[in-house]
Amino acid sequence: EFRKMSDPNKRLLLIPGPIEFHESVLAANGRQTLSHVDPGFINTFGETIEQIRSVVLTETGQPFVMSGSGTLGLEAVASNLIQRGDKALVCNTGYFADAMTDCLTRFGAEVTEVKSPLGEAVDVEAVVAALHVGPFKLLHIIHVESSLSIGNDIETIALAARKIQPEILICVDGVCATGAEELRFDAWDIDAAFTGSQKACGVPPGLMILVLSQRAMKHIKPQTYYSDLTRWLPIMQAYEKRVGSYFCTPSVNLVVALNVSLTRLLNVYGGMEKIFVTMKTIGQNMRDRVLAMGLKLVSPSGKGASNTMTSIYYPDNVDGGQFRSAMSKHNCIIAGGLHPAIKTKYFRIGHMGISALEPERGHLEQLVAAMESCLRECGHVFPKDYVPSQPLAQL
Amino acid sequence: EFRKMSDPNKRLLLIPGPIEFHESVLAANGRQTLSHVDPGFINTFGETIEQIRSVVLTETGQPFVMSGSGTLGLEAVASNLIQRGDKALVCNTGYFADAMTDCLTRFGAEVTEVKSPLGEAVDVEAVVAALHVGPFKLLHIIHVESSLSIGNDIETIALAARKIQPEILICVDGVCATGAEELRFDAWDIDAAFTGSQKACGVPPGLMILVLSQRAMKHIKPQTYYSDLTRWLPIMQAYEKRVGSYFCTPSVNLVVALNVSLTRLLNVYGGMEKIFVTMKTIGQNMRDRVLAMGLKLVSPSGKGASNTMTSIYYPDNVDGGQFRSAMSKHNCIIAGGLHPAIKTKYFRIGHMGISALEPERGHLEQLVAAMESCLRECGHVFPKDYVPSQPLAQL
Repeated sequence: EFRKMSDPNKRLLLIPGPIEFHESVLAANGRQTLSHVDPGFINTFGETIEQIRSVVLTETGQPFVMSGSGTLGLEAVASNLIQRGDKALVCNTGYFADAMTDCLTRFGAEVTEVKSPLGEAVDVEAVVAALHVGPFKLLHIIHVESSLSIGNDIETIALAARKIQPEILICVDGVCATGAEELRFDAWDIDAAFTGSQKACGVPPGLMILVLSQRAMKHIKPQTYYSDLTRWLPIMQAYEKRVGSYFCTPSVNLVVALNVSLTRLLNVYGGMEKIFVTMKTIGQNMRDRVLAMGLKLVSPSGKGASNTMTSIYYPDNVDGGQFRSAMSKHNCIIAGGLHPAIKTKYFRIGHMGISALEPERGHLEQLVAAMESCLRECGHVFPKDYVPSQPLAQL
Repeated sequence: EFRKMSDPNKRLLLIPGPIEFHESVLAANGRQTLSHVDPGFINTFGETIEQIRSVVLTETGQPFVMSGSGTLGLEAVASNLIQRGDKALVCNTGYFADAMTDCLTRFGAEVTEVKSPLGEAVDVEAVVAALHVGPFKLLHIIHVESSLSIGNDIETIALAARKIQPEILICVDGVCATGAEELRFDAWDIDAAFTGSQKACGVPPGLMILVLSQRAMKHIKPQTYYSDLTRWLPIMQAYEKRVGSYFCTPSVNLVVALNVSLTRLLNVYGGMEKIFVTMKTIGQNMRDRVLAMGLKLVSPSGKGASNTMTSIYYPDNVDGGQFRSAMSKHNCIIAGGLHPAIKTKYFRIGHMGISALEPERGHLEQLVAAMESCLRECGHVFPKDYVPSQPLAQL
């Protein structure tokens, strides 16, 4: 029986984050806080900084771990790398790109957007064309646009951009991606990548994790105080050398929890290369299953789809509120729509972290089974050839 | 026996924060994260916002709970209430006032400082004189200057300032104070007060809690993106009305933990009035005991001293590193000096949260007993009339 560890009475959080967290991560978060200069904590923090390099596959990138939500990542990039009048190119695939345009504008950037039609990934040709008109100081791409479950082709865009503008700063919003979707910071010559702890890094919300290239480090000119990276850099360097230091009190519990979770990513789950492959399979299996159910995806199924989450239109005859409420009664918490243009017309499911990497828990089978029941309950008629209750990979 | 609940094998964190946290607070922090729009979480967050008003004794103040360290409080005040060229008056009693001057300057304020001699509280007459020269848009006072354990007289300064400049914005850095030291937001007509979760609010680090007066709200003109209060306000208002909303993903676990801890402050410990009295007694008892040991305080013992923490000079013949290391072996973690002028010459002990409000735990007796042993071990000779191992209040 494939639902070995699944407990149908446990409520599963299957949204694009926060996600389900490993028991050892939660235990770390619930332990008595150590002093931020405790030798044990200093060592854990130092090790965590090193782990972050391994997660994004960089040798020379500089990690920063800051107390704040993922949104602080937008600010850390914009407020440190942008000066008034700088030109920035934003690949706009939805809600979170709008946010970055707002943020860059706040710090004085002149923003040009390459907009994709709703649900479609960034058009590389359009970005190339814009870069030829350029020049831009900064190019911003969202790895997984979590408002619509779009997965952008960071590799192709980054390599193309670097060829056209060798000194451009390439920034990746990795909020629903980093720790799960393929990201090669050094090989793709990325300059900034950030995420929030509560997504594929597998830790409760409250930490923002940022990595900057040495190229980006040379451009730091802070416009704020709290996210001033010239203040954070000596702290990160000190902890990595296993020396305590102080600018702000770090979120000690969350940092210890991050250490536990990244140890799982890098060791228990077999490292990033293996995770990249697993996540691609899981993303594709989930989309295949959804399509087999006779549902329509918001973003296309192959290239251009994210593997950490999926956005799905409600069938025409299904009431969204009724469906999500039925799912909740089946102990599966899923998310509603977020993109203003179609907000009430679709829902989003998250499939990352332990729900993806520990299949023996049966989370995704529980999710699929609940979708089957609830869709039927809400009046959806499945295609004749749909075989329910199959393990994901065996469809 | 007064050390009822004390376990000499438990390491006690008795620094100015993070502090020892209640088991129920840690348990809340270690539970599986809820969705930020889960009805249960929405209710908890809404209730927490209401609790914050009760903690600072305001009816009309607007609370904000943001993911970040206490330092984000400096930024939230400066970046929202200050415009380039605005004049600000900072009462400078040490390290954290220097930080606020830096932060205000970053956002364009012209800062005037009223500096106190090392270890002395703000001189009200000097502030009054500066205000008469004014005018200033903002007056900044630190409630507890935790680099030196100074407790400033917020009431007298705030009331005097309001008389001289009725429209001045009075800002209180409550980082080592709020939740323990007497603060009457409405009665003293304060405009901004903030703290970090890991101090007297009794929650692991990662939340910044800010309250603004309606007067201050009218001055908000954000200079950043992440701490832009015009973005946070609708979120706080929505949650208080028990409706989910989104700008950043809140630090769900920490917010739930804050709810648990503030419930203890407001209900289990008998409310703020009782806590104010208890904390004054504990602060005075601790200083009396330290003086009885023949030690010298960094700040004076009565008026001008903080009640949440105490800064103490090492006796001349005692080596600071050796003493702190001996204390650690006695399972009491204390803090070294922080103020650059005397950093190696003194140590700091924290006595707030459960260590102060749950005397049955015997934390402070364990601390005093450890100090007695370790000081003796390090060569300190106690005054002839010193009676060791007495409960704090019975000296």
